[in-house]
Amino acid sequence: MDHQLSHVRSDGSAHMVDVTGKDTTARTSRAQAVVHTRSDVIDLIMDADLPKGDALPVARVAGIMAAKKTWETIPLCHPIPLGKITVDFEADVDAGTLRVITLVKTKGVTGVEMEALSAVSTAALTVYDMIKAVDARAVITDIKVLEKTGGKSGDWAISEPGDDS
Amino acid sequence: MDHQLSHVRSDGSAHMVDVTGKDTTARTSRAQAVVHTRSDVIDLIMDADLPKGDALPVARVAGIMAAKKTWETIPLCHPIPLGKITVDFEADVDAGTLRVITLVKTKGVTGVEMEALSAVSTAALTVYDMIKAVDARAVITDIKVLEKTGGKSGDWAISEPGDDS
Amino acid sequence: MDHQLSHVRSDGSAHMVDVTGKDTTARTSRAQAVVHTRSDVIDLIMDADLPKGDALPVARVAGIMAAKKTWETIPLCHPIPLGKITVDFEADVDAGTLRVITLVKTKGVTGVEMEALSAVSTAALTVYDMIKAVDARAVITDIKVLEKTGGKSGDWAISEPGDDS
Amino acid sequence: MDHQLSHVRSDGSAHMVDVTGKDTTARTSRAQAVVHTRSDVIDLIMDADLPKGDALPVARVAGIMAAKKTWETIPLCHPIPLGKITVDFEADVDAGTLRVITLVKTKGVTGVEMEALSAVSTAALTVYDMIKAVDARAVITDIKVLEKTGGKSGDWAISEPGDDS
Amino acid sequence: MDHQLSHVRSDGSAHMVDVTGKDTTARTSRAQAVVHTRSDVIDLIMDADLPKGDALPVARVAGIMAAKKTWETIPLCHPIPLGKITVDFEADVDAGTLRVITLVKTKGVTGVEMEALSAVSTAALTVYDMIKAVDARAVITDIKVLEKTGGKSGDWAISEPGDDS
Amino acid sequence: MDHQLSHVRSDGSAHMVDVTGKDTTARTSRAQAVVHTRSDVIDLIMDADLPKGDALPVARVAGIMAAKKTWETIPLCHPIPLGKITVDFEADVDAGTLRVITLVKTKGVTGVEMEALSAVSTAALTVYDMIKAVDARAVITDIKVLEKTGGKSGDWAISEPGDDS
Repeated sequence: MDHQLSHVRSDGSAHMVDVTGKDTTARTSRAQAVVHTRSDVIDLIMDADLPKGDALPVARVAGIMAAKKTWETIPLCHPIPLGKITVDFEADVDAGTLRVITLVKTKGVTGVEMEALSAVSTAALTVYDMIKAVDARAVITDIKVLEKTGGKSGDWAISEPGDDS
Repeated sequence: MDHQLSHVRSDGSAHMVDVTGKDTTARTSRAQAVVHTRSDVIDLIMDADLPKGDALPVARVAGIMAAKKTWETIPLCHPIPLGKITVDFEADVDAGTLRVITLVKTKGVTGVEMEALSAVSTAALTVYDMIKAVDARAVITDIKVLEKTGGKSGDWAISEPGDDS
Repeated sequence: MDHQLSHVRSDGSAHMVDVTGKDTTARTSRAQAVVHTRSDVIDLIMDADLPKGDALPVARVAGIMAAKKTWETIPLCHPIPLGKITVDFEADVDAGTLRVITLVKTKGVTGVEMEALSAVSTAALTVYDMIKAVDARAVITDIKVLEKTGGKSGDWAISEPGDDS
Repeated sequence: MDHQLSHVRSDGSAHMVDVTGKDTTARTSRAQAVVHTRSDVIDLIMDADLPKGDALPVARVAGIMAAKKTWETIPLCHPIPLGKITVDFEADVDAGTLRVITLVKTKGVTGVEMEALSAVSTAALTVYDMIKAVDARAVITDIKVLEKTGGKSGDWAISEPGDDS
Repeated sequence: MDHQLSHVRSDGSAHMVDVTGKDTTARTSRAQAVVHTRSDVIDLIMDADLPKGDALPVARVAGIMAAKKTWETIPLCHPIPLGKITVDFEADVDAGTLRVITLVKTKGVTGVEMEALSAVSTAALTVYDMIKAVDARAVITDIKVLEKTGGKSGDWAISEPGDDS
Repeated sequence: MDHQLSHVRSDGSAHMVDVTGKDTTARTSRAQAVVHTRSDVIDLIMDADLPKGDALPVARVAGIMAAKKTWETIPLCHPIPLGKITVDFEADVDAGTLRVITLVKTKGVTGVEMEALSAVSTAALTVYDMIKAVDARAVITDIKVLEKTGGKSGDWAISEPGDDS
């Protein structure tokens, strides 16, 4: 932790940190978000019967485009090239939940956690936009990084019981 | 629900629905997101001692700017004028949580739930970006609309125990 | 034509013309673009068997989002609210063509021809992007306004033999 | 074709393909679009006598800016650095046509066909926007890649009778 | 001044102020910026002999586009419709200066001073970009609002000796 | 100067110049802008007592985000990666001035002067937006590059009496 804190400026002012000395390496990040709604709404999603149309392809595109714009949306993120982005969905009708899972790959000087998180949160918000006419009280939760590879801080993953992505 | 479903196209294809016949009325929406981290990280946030600098003003600006760009980010949202946007934070050091609360007002033809949700999720992601050097495993949760006024679907609010915003 | 030419500045310099005196009225525009490729590629499109995945939902979202950003892309276009956007496709396997048709509605002070044209051209470019691995020599053609209603210049439509949209 | 089709995901879902393993090489692409209007309108364009002002410099800037934003507009395009962009015009008064030709160069991991096509289509749309007060029925056609160099798929060019660009 | 200060929040936090209660009225703003360079550089500008090409049409388009994106660039600005934008230039070869003057009109709920200032500063920066190969030490100065009409705060103008715009 | 002028095209048309043959090297640029207002307004800025809230953190974020978007705003700028961005402020209450100073670092093929200038001018405009309710006649001046390192044109700096940044 000491190393990272060396970025702190004496007056505490926010700044974009220096990455010009970092190595370009292969990096990946996987992240997720979960939309909690009702079972009948999950059915409408899977059957493409929602008022605004088929939700998942729209949410997938929105997530991919959001990943590419992360540096525009998150003030202190660096613009980096992105090499691969996938956005997948796992529906659980009984639980009334839709899980969004994203994988982002790059060959760059920073990790791609923020890109993966932007993708899942935007895809989940897009799903909410498509279902809000039938469930305005849906909740988005459990937005987190699942796995990270590459970079000086090393690889890590959280345990995902039953993860089949 | 029947009324809304009348928007469904015969082939289920996604589209931006017609709002040209809707009335321009005053509308508000309040939404929240919660960042779950550790108590010591909440202290770093509140003391502006994070590696990238003082997190809350950056997250506030990011949330306000994201609200204005909702129609660019969420594919089927309509561009609408926005009249007021606030982004507030409630820290709970013991619980290790930071709650983000947004209020958006407009005089327009659609509600501003998506704008409020975009603001809170972007502000929460920005907080994650500022703290990830000290807690990469923080989780964003409970993103939801708290209250809505104006528009044909009527006013509603969820109960918020101890809400003081 | 005399009336419109009154906008010309004495030095011929480009400018965004004054629309503050124009009435807000309901306006629509329909436009099209045609992608010329091969019959087997049309089959791949319709069967969602392309390398990058299912092309039409992606092109539809791209077209809708492009319509909303027309004022950012076309330098002298005015930002206007948009009330409805649809993007449809008509495949002709024998001819090896895919026709993109867009309808845009607004209640505003300018027409929405540019928005409809931006939608069809961006949707067609997106289709090209999805098929270029199998047909880099595909051609986009016949981008034009099909119909316009509302505004002082009056309603008009071109004849479309066999148009069933 | 087999190689490219290996990108297809089992469920056919759209995704941004992995380019992290591709080599950074010099690449160019030339593309064109043609605006069909009337002879007198071509005269107005060339004489900078149009209502909104001198069209070609505006269309040139719009095309260059669109090339740089291709990854924002076309959902599955990768953001890449761009090294050179030119936008040129060839007017044929008798035919009532204006041809837009773009050259894009990069040193990157993907080709720049989409960037060249975005430039010509946006420049052509901008010309339409400048002339629509005098010819709303103008048509944009023959948008295609003329030539491509660099990358694993090899160099190629279509024959252009009398091309002097 | 008392009235405006009523917007201050108790904790001093930044926010987008409420304009939903304000009247939609016609408003204009004129602003300027001045680029200080050398006489020979002004000649290169006026003769379109600069390395990157003819500077003024590019700067004009950049200024117009920047005015439209003011709400994206300036965090607490409201998105408003814009009705007219002009960008003009006055060269003084002897003084080695280029003055940029913008007029913006709207029918909206806020003034357009920020839009006019964004236009002149972006146009001036674009001129700097075009001349920096021949004068990297050029300076941009005197960015200010010249005149404002409409809105509750009333009309005002600064005196401009010899202003002929 | 001869070298750079070799970029001029025969017809003087604007274009984005070729940088594909340039070396990737470490480069920095420092720039400044100065806001001239009144002493009491500087006090309001430093005490975070302005109507719209605490100005400096908002202006800092606006400046950083503008630096990253320079290639979108300035038509002929190349998109390049950015490695570090800081935005600092120096208030002079007696003089009634606020100086904005930016440092931008990259490892890229072009200099970052335009990025540094975009940051300072946008930060200064944001300050104006925050103070215009109390001083609509504030002026932004002395926008210039202070120092440049890296690249073929060599390092240089202007003298800054008493510069303590």
